[in-house]
Parts: sequence; C-alpha cells; structure tokens
Amino acid sequence: MPEPARFNVLLAGYGTVGRSLHRALETQREHLATAHGLDVRITGIARSDRVATDPDGLPLKDDGSVRWQRGGLLDEIWEAEADVFVEATPTDLEDGQPGLGHVRTAFHNELPVVLANKGPVVVAYDELVQRAQTAGVPLRFEATVAGCVPSLNAARYSFAGDTIHKVEGILNGTTNFILTRMAEEGSDLDQALREAQALGYAETDPTADIEGLDAASKVVILGNALLGLDLTMDTVEVQGITQVTRQAVELADDHGFRVKLVAEASRDGTARVGPRLVPRGSTLDVPGALNAVRFTTQLAGTVTHTGAGAGGNATAAALLSDIVDVARVTGVADR
Amino acid sequence: MPEPARFNVLLAGYGTVGRSLHRALETQREHLATAHGLDVRITGIARSDRVATDPDGLPLKDDGSVRWQRGGLLDEIWEAEADVFVEATPTDLEDGQPGLGHVRTAFHNELPVVLANKGPVVVAYDELVQRAQTAGVPLRFEATVAGCVPSLNAARYSFAGDTIHKVEGILNGTTNFILTRMAEEGSDLDQALREAQALGYAETDPTADIEGLDAASKVVILGNALLGLDLTMDTVEVQGITQVTRQAVELADDHGFRVKLVAEASRDGTARVGPRLVPRGSTLDVPGALNAVRFTTQLAGTVTHTGAGAGGNATAAALLSDIVDVARVTGVADR
Repeated sequence: MPEPARFNVLLAGYGTVGRSLHRALETQREHLATAHGLDVRITGIARSDRVATDPDGLPLKDDGSVRWQRGGLLDEIWEAEADVFVEATPTDLEDGQPGLGHVRTAFHNELPVVLANKGPVVVAYDELVQRAQTAGVPLRFEATVAGCVPSLNAARYSFAGDTIHKVEGILNGTTNFILTRMAEEGSDLDQALREAQALGYAETDPTADIEGLDAASKVVILGNALLGLDLTMDTVEVQGITQVTRQAVELADDHGFRVKLVAEASRDGTARVGPRLVPRGSTLDVPGALNAVRFTTQLAGTVTHTGAGAGGNATAAALLSDIVDVARVTGVADR
Repeated sequence: MPEPARFNVLLAGYGTVGRSLHRALETQREHLATAHGLDVRITGIARSDRVATDPDGLPLKDDGSVRWQRGGLLDEIWEAEADVFVEATPTDLEDGQPGLGHVRTAFHNELPVVLANKGPVVVAYDELVQRAQTAGVPLRFEATVAGCVPSLNAARYSFAGDTIHKVEGILNGTTNFILTRMAEEGSDLDQALREAQALGYAETDPTADIEGLDAASKVVILGNALLGLDLTMDTVEVQGITQVTRQAVELADDHGFRVKLVAEASRDGTARVGPRLVPRGSTLDVPGALNAVRFTTQLAGTVTHTGAGAGGNATAAALLSDIVDVARVTGVADR
C-alpha cells in the first residue's frame, strides 16, 4: 500500500466538539489510511486565549489534553501548514461571530472550510458560498444539522439526480427528549426540562432549544442549501414548546399521536418550526434525544434518516465525513 | 450558465427499471443541468431481442415507448458513443447472467458501470471490483439494495471517516408487506401473500422473496461492499418467513414486538437473514412495503434510513445518483 497522503487540519475551538474530533482522528487513523489513503493530522488549534501548532500534528496527551505552547493570537494560527480549516467555536445566531470572521480569513487564505458551528452559515450563507467559489475551495457543514444523521451530504450524493421538494425534521434533541418524557412519563414541561438538564441534554439556559430557535437555525441551513431558498432567522415562522401542556400531550396520545417539535422547509418558500401532531410509529416519531430528517423528493418519494443529533462523537463523525469529502474534491484522497 | 456537458448512457434492459430511468431523465433534465451541469442522454438501449441507438439521445415517444430500429445483436450496442453503462436486465442469483457478461464487456471497453441488476455483484463482487480497478473506471450499485434508500452511497460519503461495524435491514418489501398485514389485519401468511400478489407487491412465483433469498443477496452486497467480507449466497444463513404463523405474530404483538424479516451482516463475519422480534416503534419497525437500513458505526452510533425499497421511480432515483456520481468522479460533472 502506498504511503497515506498527509492532510492537515487547522481547528478553531477546542470544546467538546474539537476534542472529540481530535480523539476521533486517533481512533480512525487506520481506517482513514486504508479506506481513503489519508493521514489526517491537526497542525494547529486556536482557542479564544491559547494556540498550539505543530507541523507534524498535535498529539493528544494521555489525559486527552493538548500541550498549549503559548498564550497567543488567533492570527498566528493561519501561518500553520494546512489543507482544511475546521470551525468549532461556540455558535452565535445573531452575528455569527467569532466563527464568521474565521471563515472569511480561511477563504481569504484559499483554505477549504468545514463547519461544526452553525453561526456562519445561518447568518451569511450566500456570502460564504460566494467566497468559497471565488477562492475555488469547498465549503462543507454536515455537522451543523442533525449531527451525524446524513442530511446535507445525503442530498449532495444520495439524491444527486433527484429534486428535493420538502425537508422536515426533528432537529433539536433537547425538546424531543422533553416531549418524549412528557408522553411516556406523564411529566409536565418543567419536570421534563429539569430532568433533561440533570442528564446533560439541556443547557442551563435552555431558551434557544425550547423556544425553537436552534431548530429554526437548522431550517435556515437546510432551506438555503437544499431548496435554494433565501432564508434568515427572521423569515422562519417559529413557535417553541413552551405552550405544550401535559394535557395536550395526553390528548394527542389518546388519538394515536405524539406531539413533536417539527421543523420544515419547502421549495415553495414555507419555513417553520412548531409543535405538530405526528402519528405514533411514523418515521418522525423518534424517541428520546434522537433526531430525524425526512426528505420528500420527486423520484424517491419519502426517505427518512434517524440517529443521534448531538454529542461529541456524532459530531466528529459528521466532521470527518466532510474532511474526507474535502480531501476527495481537492484531489488528495482516492475517489 | 455554460452549456451542460453531454453524458451518454448505454442501457441494457428496458423493463420497469429501464423505462423509469428513461422517463426520469426527461423529468430531471433541468435539475441535472442546473445542479450538476449535465445533459444526460440515453444513446443506446439493448433488450434481449432488440436494440436502438441514437447518437443524439433516444427520445421517449408519447406512449413512453422507444423506436426500436432493428432486431439486432447486443454486440452492436457497444459501438454507441457512451460515458457510462447501466445494467438493468433481470436478476439471476445463480450465475449473474446475462448482466455479468455485459458488465465484463463494459469494463473491457473501459466504460464506467452502474447496476440496477444485483446478479453481477452478488455472484462476482471481487472480480468486478478488480476489473473496474484495472479499467480505471468506477463501479456503482446503489440501486441494488433498498432502492432509493441511501445505503452504499451513504457509507461511501456520509460515513466516510467512520467505521461501520454492522448493517441490518428490512431489505425485502414483499415480505415486509406480508408481515405487516399479518400483524395489522390478523391475516394468515397465505391470505397476506395473495393480497400482496393482487396489489403487485409480490411476483407470481414469490419463492425468492418469502424464502429470504432476495434479502440474502442484498446482505451479500452490503457485507462485501461495506464490511470488507467475502460473502456468497452460500455463506449467508437464511431463513424465510414461511414458518411464521399468525399465532406467532399475535404473540409478539401482545409483548410489544413485531415479527420482521431482518437481514444483517457484521464485521466479525456474521451474515444472516431470518424472522426476528423487533420492538414496536423502533427504527426497524417500518410498515407496509417500506425498507430500512440500519448502520452501527464506531462514531455515529446507530443511524437508520427508511424509504421505498422498490418501484420504478425509487430505483431510477438511485440510478441517477450513481450516474451523477460517475460523472463527478470522471471529471465531467461539477463537484
């Protein structure tokens, strides 16, 4: 077997997602070499207050940490030798920063971009597609929607010759966990939310989840990328789950339905998030914190994908698929 | 917009699948041009007793038929100008013919190959992968497993950096329809089978379906292509649904289960098809004639895809995704 080709990653952000990607590159080292002829290494990491670079690849220490070389400026990271930039800093849905600035710099440097951070594509989809084109490099963001559940790549590859008319989904694991507990345990919303927080499914401030904003941001991405719409957070009709009562859930159950927070976008321009009755046992009736994405297409009819929508490994899986895709498209990995 | 690039298809077989592909190329003409910069035309069709060729693309007549130009030899078809060969003749699981011979000829002519016909990859997977490599052209066969439900392309692209440990699925729509009717209507096997035949879900001779052989052939393909196994029809442990009684289905139902014909292959070498109890409402509990494919991977955990496993349009959707992929890989379509 020929020597695998080096493929260097610059990473911004080193929280759960960044660390999971770093670990996944170790566990998948052999797979990446044999399946794709790739030797993927992280040659630079930037956090808000620290950077680390190593042209031979930054090793994971035994405790899973990185040897930070200096308190430094993010700017220095761009000097590292790299083939792709992975943006995994915290999401901001208002101005997309700091991720948006990082992505602009990456394109300025003609680096392909892979996003875990939704902010940049939610706030500036058209601009970033344009910048990627100008730079002549790919932009990928599978990890921003439904974690490892194939959504954007599925459309790119599995439905390549088909026309997607509508995308619906259970795109927020926190609210799905809450609604599942309300249906299965007869909890009320507050109880279920506290349980979700105790189990780590919900943030201390759960507003973005239960108000439907997180799901709406994913509708913006799916609508723009798969349906050619021109959505922003302001053009999505959003209702969260705060008005969903235990009684409503029970009544739905009596009639064979589940209450689910369904996010949807159609080619006709419809884009909304809100509680909907879903027939029990139907493909959108996924339990717990699972996500689901349902495509309605011209030829294939209805196809649904379900799986873990969040978590470090699930997100790392999506990032790795994008990294391999970038390596293929740029001619480094085998086709 | 630049002129779309011509991409010519040679097609063997003109039954439901071949005709559906021909129609789909008409309905998707604009999509293929705008999304992929492609102008896909069928320049040659071969049936067992007729051929038709047209260097400008064979038009569909108003009644959906083709103007057969001559009673002729299959051999003549290879003289047509083509960029990809699509094999859609009837499946033979014993010797793979006539498809296997066609595919060998295509590779001999250095033509990329897209299969709707399972026979060749079930009978001669290693040989065909080898021939494709020697010819330096791609081999794709998404349509052979679960119709338009992403299975092989999903693995190639969506789980590219991940390691698939196990694949399970509901891969035969006929038996799923029968088992669903037995569970929902309390029918016995014979009643449900007659109903399936009346509705066109089952063949007049349903042996390959109800004995589990069709599902087994798909396990061979998934196991070899996704798990690196070396399976043949003889090494898959197969049990069909002929022994599944109405009483067994009812008993399962009383305990919250469905009886499903589950096909599975694992990286450890396990490969089998047989009736299994599946928790009601779980991701493999798909109703009617639907198919499901469930991947268990190193990073993503469990991801399930469900949708139509058969039918002309569903198969055409899968063929088109492969045709576009071939055009990308060979540098004709935009990436």
